[in-house]
Amino acid sequence: MRVGVLTGGGDCPGLNAVIRGVVRKGVQEYGYDFVGFRDGWRGPMEGDTVRLDIPAVRGILPRGGTILGSSRTNPLKQEGGIRRIKDNLAKLEVEALVAIGGEDTLGVAARLSDEYGVPCVGVPKTIDNDLSATDYTFGFDTAVGIATEAIDRLHTTAESHMRVLVCEVMGRHAGWIALHSGLAGGANVILIPEQRFDPDQVCAWITSRFKASYAPIVVVAEGAMPKDGEMVLKDASRDSFGHVRLSGIGEWLAKEIERRTGKEARTTVLGHIQRGGTPSAFDRWLATRFGLHAVDCVRDRDFGKMVALRGTDVVRVPIAEATARLKTVDPALYQEAGVFFG
Amino acid sequence: MRVGVLTGGGDCPGLNAVIRGVVRKGVQEYGYDFVGFRDGWRGPMEGDTVRLDIPAVRGILPRGGTILGSSRTNPLKQEGGIRRIKDNLAKLEVEALVAIGGEDTLGVAARLSDEYGVPCVGVPKTIDNDLSATDYTFGFDTAVGIATEAIDRLHTTAESHMRVLVCEVMGRHAGWIALHSGLAGGANVILIPEQRFDPDQVCAWITSRFKASYAPIVVVAEGAMPKDGEMVLKDASRDSFGHVRLSGIGEWLAKEIERRTGKEARTTVLGHIQRGGTPSAFDRWLATRFGLHAVDCVRDRDFGKMVALRGTDVVRVPIAEATARLKTVDPALYQEAGVFFG
Amino acid sequence: MRVGVLTGGGDCPGLNAVIRGVVRKGVQEYGYDFVGFRDGWRGPMEGDTVRLDIPAVRGILPRGGTILGSSRTNPLKQEGGIRRIKDNLAKLEVEALVAIGGEDTLGVAARLSDEYGVPCVGVPKTIDNDLSATDYTFGFDTAVGIATEAIDRLHTTAESHMRVLVCEVMGRHAGWIALHSGLAGGANVILIPEQRFDPDQVCAWITSRFKASYAPIVVVAEGAMPKDGEMVLKDASRDSFGHVRLSGIGEWLAKEIERRTGKEARTTVLGHIQRGGTPSAFDRWLATRFGLHAVDCVRDRDFGKMVALRGTDVVRVPIAEATARLKTVDPALYQEAGVFFG
Amino acid sequence: MRVGVLTGGGDCPGLNAVIRGVVRKGVQEYGYDFVGFRDGWRGPMEGDTVRLDIPAVRGILPRGGTILGSSRTNPLKQEGGIRRIKDNLAKLEVEALVAIGGEDTLGVAARLSDEYGVPCVGVPKTIDNDLSATDYTFGFDTAVGIATEAIDRLHTTAESHMRVLVCEVMGRHAGWIALHSGLAGGANVILIPEQRFDPDQVCAWITSRFKASYAPIVVVAEGAMPKDGEMVLKDASRDSFGHVRLSGIGEWLAKEIERRTGKEARTTVLGHIQRGGTPSAFDRWLATRFGLHAVDCVRDRDFGKMVALRGTDVVRVPIAEATARLKTVDPALYQEAGVFFG
Repeated sequence: MRVGVLTGGGDCPGLNAVIRGVVRKGVQEYGYDFVGFRDGWRGPMEGDTVRLDIPAVRGILPRGGTILGSSRTNPLKQEGGIRRIKDNLAKLEVEALVAIGGEDTLGVAARLSDEYGVPCVGVPKTIDNDLSATDYTFGFDTAVGIATEAIDRLHTTAESHMRVLVCEVMGRHAGWIALHSGLAGGANVILIPEQRFDPDQVCAWITSRFKASYAPIVVVAEGAMPKDGEMVLKDASRDSFGHVRLSGIGEWLAKEIERRTGKEARTTVLGHIQRGGTPSAFDRWLATRFGLHAVDCVRDRDFGKMVALRGTDVVRVPIAEATARLKTVDPALYQEAGVFFG
Repeated sequence: MRVGVLTGGGDCPGLNAVIRGVVRKGVQEYGYDFVGFRDGWRGPMEGDTVRLDIPAVRGILPRGGTILGSSRTNPLKQEGGIRRIKDNLAKLEVEALVAIGGEDTLGVAARLSDEYGVPCVGVPKTIDNDLSATDYTFGFDTAVGIATEAIDRLHTTAESHMRVLVCEVMGRHAGWIALHSGLAGGANVILIPEQRFDPDQVCAWITSRFKASYAPIVVVAEGAMPKDGEMVLKDASRDSFGHVRLSGIGEWLAKEIERRTGKEARTTVLGHIQRGGTPSAFDRWLATRFGLHAVDCVRDRDFGKMVALRGTDVVRVPIAEATARLKTVDPALYQEAGVFFG
Repeated sequence: MRVGVLTGGGDCPGLNAVIRGVVRKGVQEYGYDFVGFRDGWRGPMEGDTVRLDIPAVRGILPRGGTILGSSRTNPLKQEGGIRRIKDNLAKLEVEALVAIGGEDTLGVAARLSDEYGVPCVGVPKTIDNDLSATDYTFGFDTAVGIATEAIDRLHTTAESHMRVLVCEVMGRHAGWIALHSGLAGGANVILIPEQRFDPDQVCAWITSRFKASYAPIVVVAEGAMPKDGEMVLKDASRDSFGHVRLSGIGEWLAKEIERRTGKEARTTVLGHIQRGGTPSAFDRWLATRFGLHAVDCVRDRDFGKMVALRGTDVVRVPIAEATARLKTVDPALYQEAGVFFG
Repeated sequence: MRVGVLTGGGDCPGLNAVIRGVVRKGVQEYGYDFVGFRDGWRGPMEGDTVRLDIPAVRGILPRGGTILGSSRTNPLKQEGGIRRIKDNLAKLEVEALVAIGGEDTLGVAARLSDEYGVPCVGVPKTIDNDLSATDYTFGFDTAVGIATEAIDRLHTTAESHMRVLVCEVMGRHAGWIALHSGLAGGANVILIPEQRFDPDQVCAWITSRFKASYAPIVVVAEGAMPKDGEMVLKDASRDSFGHVRLSGIGEWLAKEIERRTGKEARTTVLGHIQRGGTPSAFDRWLATRFGLHAVDCVRDRDFGKMVALRGTDVVRVPIAEATARLKTVDPALYQEAGVFFG
């Protein structure tokens, strides 16, 4: 049996660990051979493949990125995309596909499997941890670790100068990275996309922190927004680079804090370093197990399913169901963290 | 209300994060005041206390160790131990105790709570992750991370000299650290206490790895034992330092591998660096949440309970039940890892 | 003898290690007692002091920031500033000052020592490594290490998406951090303030890198400028936040690269994480030795001098001379790195 | 022109960075082509080569170990060894050799160059930093960094249990790693091979540390020896594994400390993790520059020379001279560190 593997969407530490897990078990235990497709769905659409055997996956476990490359190509949005995939799979004698990716990549896999008879197994990937049906996705722990280490460093520079330091982390729609790294880093304010924040409240926490003779650290998700959103948009449009969502909120907040409290404030935008580099031990373990279980789904011909973590178990869930709903931060969980604000 | 806090047993990254969580929430939300007891159960037995308020817990989140000190003192094993605790608590007007510790420390807390009417709440702590009733204990992720980083380093030195490198990690009765760090570090053999290993099989894996032109890494839990255990004991007794369990198996195994395969083998014993230093982001998050939930137990007067992680939720379980059974590595899980051996 | 200690200017990993070295040796070997002045020159001007003895310096070696606080207060620019310092030193019976800081802080120390009879010893501090007379300053190695680790991470995300990643590092007037981290991180282009760069050349390197099927990393010092500087200034003025020098060049460059090459480009601005957190082993060693030697200068009454590293030796040089000239990157050294461009 | 490259002796972080520097500059600037010899001097003796061009050195900068492999083969000790090297070089049309290695490897290169007319250039490599003629060798900074991080971790476990923790680091003949990591890690006792230590004095320091309510960390080089060496030898011979020099002194010392002070003591032997894994930024920079300058020596036909670091400059020195004398720790430098003992 020949099995195709592809990785789609933004990169994420752990992708290579999944690929290695799939190939090691598939070859050694089930005698499959594998075809790597290059750059997500572009690969099967264009028949662009790469050799994928035991030697190809040696040494890739600790490496970030993906040896298969990635893209955001969506075959459902291209005329004849599906047919080209089916034709190429037939030509290459590929009987099943393991698709590793986020909402978009898995959405395609679900429809291919359910509607077009292309047997797919999904492995969830989102550094933002915002996929329901799984407790965690790999890459998230690495990102939280990098952000926490950065926050640790910002504390000392904040203390030395008694300044506010704003740290902008990833998270457009869900505040998981902000919440976890903020808690782990001992932040004094954590702002997430799920709840509009009140700049006055933020400044009150900051002032209270200074009163205790400590300098405040504010962790803000890139997608967080103040209650008076109009004003932000107005300000954002004055940015000459047009990167409103990417680099806007941290800078905006620092400026607002300076204006309102009279204290110096500085911003650090962590950006891409959160998603590159070697995966944490947790992510290597999770990604490896996802890989092993995904190839078991293939063996069981259990298609249209996605592997997921529940507690310490890896389970299978229908892809379509799993990608239906964004997993956002529960208000109770956010409130729990509030005891450390100020 | 006045609440006592103590930490018992071996140290573990995250202890300070628990203490901080307990105190921050207890003071700010419930208006409690706190008394720190020094060195585990020795503190309440001897009335040895330390100030424990908001300033005392500032800045301790990222620090390893415990600001309260630790010991293995067991009041149940000392004549009049319980009475002295009750007297001291009464004298200090302490109405509840939060006990942070492993099987022994929590076992005392359970009996104090259930049999002697001393209201206790438990927070589980074992770097070995071998406590049932909780998915993970804090400290474990840090230990796995340190071991994984060490294994990463050993790979390059193994490859350069085409040697076997044996890495002995913690785990006397359970192989969790060996299994997780071995998987995450790409080890070629993982040996755990739960399953006696066959030295011939180990050597077969090693030889197979060399045949693929790679150098093998063997991760062995300190409590792992070969099938022919008699011989080990005989050898171990020849160690002049008497540290059989601590430093024996790794060295023994390297020697056996050299003797049987003719390949050079070296051992690294990670030892105490696995349990010291700053906690990982995951452990800080978990320990902080355990602290917050433990003080909620106090507020609810829900004594005799221990906090535990289930999936992403923190729940409460009876201490007595939780400490009844050691959580060892499931044979199926160990077998899953076997695809990477050799 | 009573000795004052102060830290001025931007913070820098290693400041606490210097303070500890000064105090440990001063107390134990020479029997001095110490007075800490708070927030740089503000401390002696306002008589704002902090206890500085052996217990005060315990445990501070691995910590970033400065336990004395810092500021940019300049007594030479304030009416009666010098007299207030002399009065306060007399009142506190402080007979010598150890001033730890950069060009500005040491410039004040030089004039106080040489012109006003206030006996000062200097310890050089600049994270940018741009002080002549010393091979290295502490903090630099830490900053280079953090930037290198970030570049390592950016490589994998660049490769996975075949994007250009621009990493903006510290260095307004000197490109040492960019040069060292760029070399250590395997950057494909390194841009420094000492040499105006040609955007066409940068794009040629980028294109050549893509042709070899690799994704390029560009490391740019915050003070680097293109040859056609007018245009930059024009663009910079469109930034609504006014942080031209701080966050401008990286973003500008990414935009230019996208416009000229048609390739996607992303920017990461490392910012304050480069100067916070625990010092590297090298910086702890250097800072500690600077502290030990500075207090030897006091004992020898060798005032107006600054400690400096030459090879592996710590030597003494006149402060005034040492701060006279900025140490910039030698064109030959920059050219040496050029073999890795493209 | 065709140039051979080989790496000999124990592995060391930075070897790959040297190889990459040599090849990148040799190919791009001088148009050389390269032949990699496998496993040190075994390669040219047996004509065992590996392809070494630009693609072969891509991505190896951050990797530990050596892509060429290493061995301790010495052609001077084998009948006809030299002639076989000359024959193989002639057959392969290799006109010059770059030998990267320690005292032994370079000693062979010196004699080959000076006495046998085989044109060699040397690049010094010793993780122990014990080569005179160069301020530092690459690999040393990485080893010191790893040891320092380990010591940081040991502090917290020492404090929590008020135990002595002994950390044994590399250094058979020179105490550089012990001295630098001990200073950087805030050790309370540092023991080096250059000065026999007095166990009574060590115990006095330990007792004094406990009196200040802190737990002591002892850093000991593997080659350190007590004054009453006879006794050690006697004890060492009781070790059943025969690894006297490798793992003996740390364990012996802990036992002695326990016996003499009555305090609990534990040992950690860092071992091979000190020499594996990714090089520090400093070592990558140094190794890269060594590579660039070594190939310049070839271009200048300046054979029999070795590159060396002096301050921030890379210079050339005769190999024979450079390897004549071991660089040990200067007694004055060791004494300087003594202020932190106890």
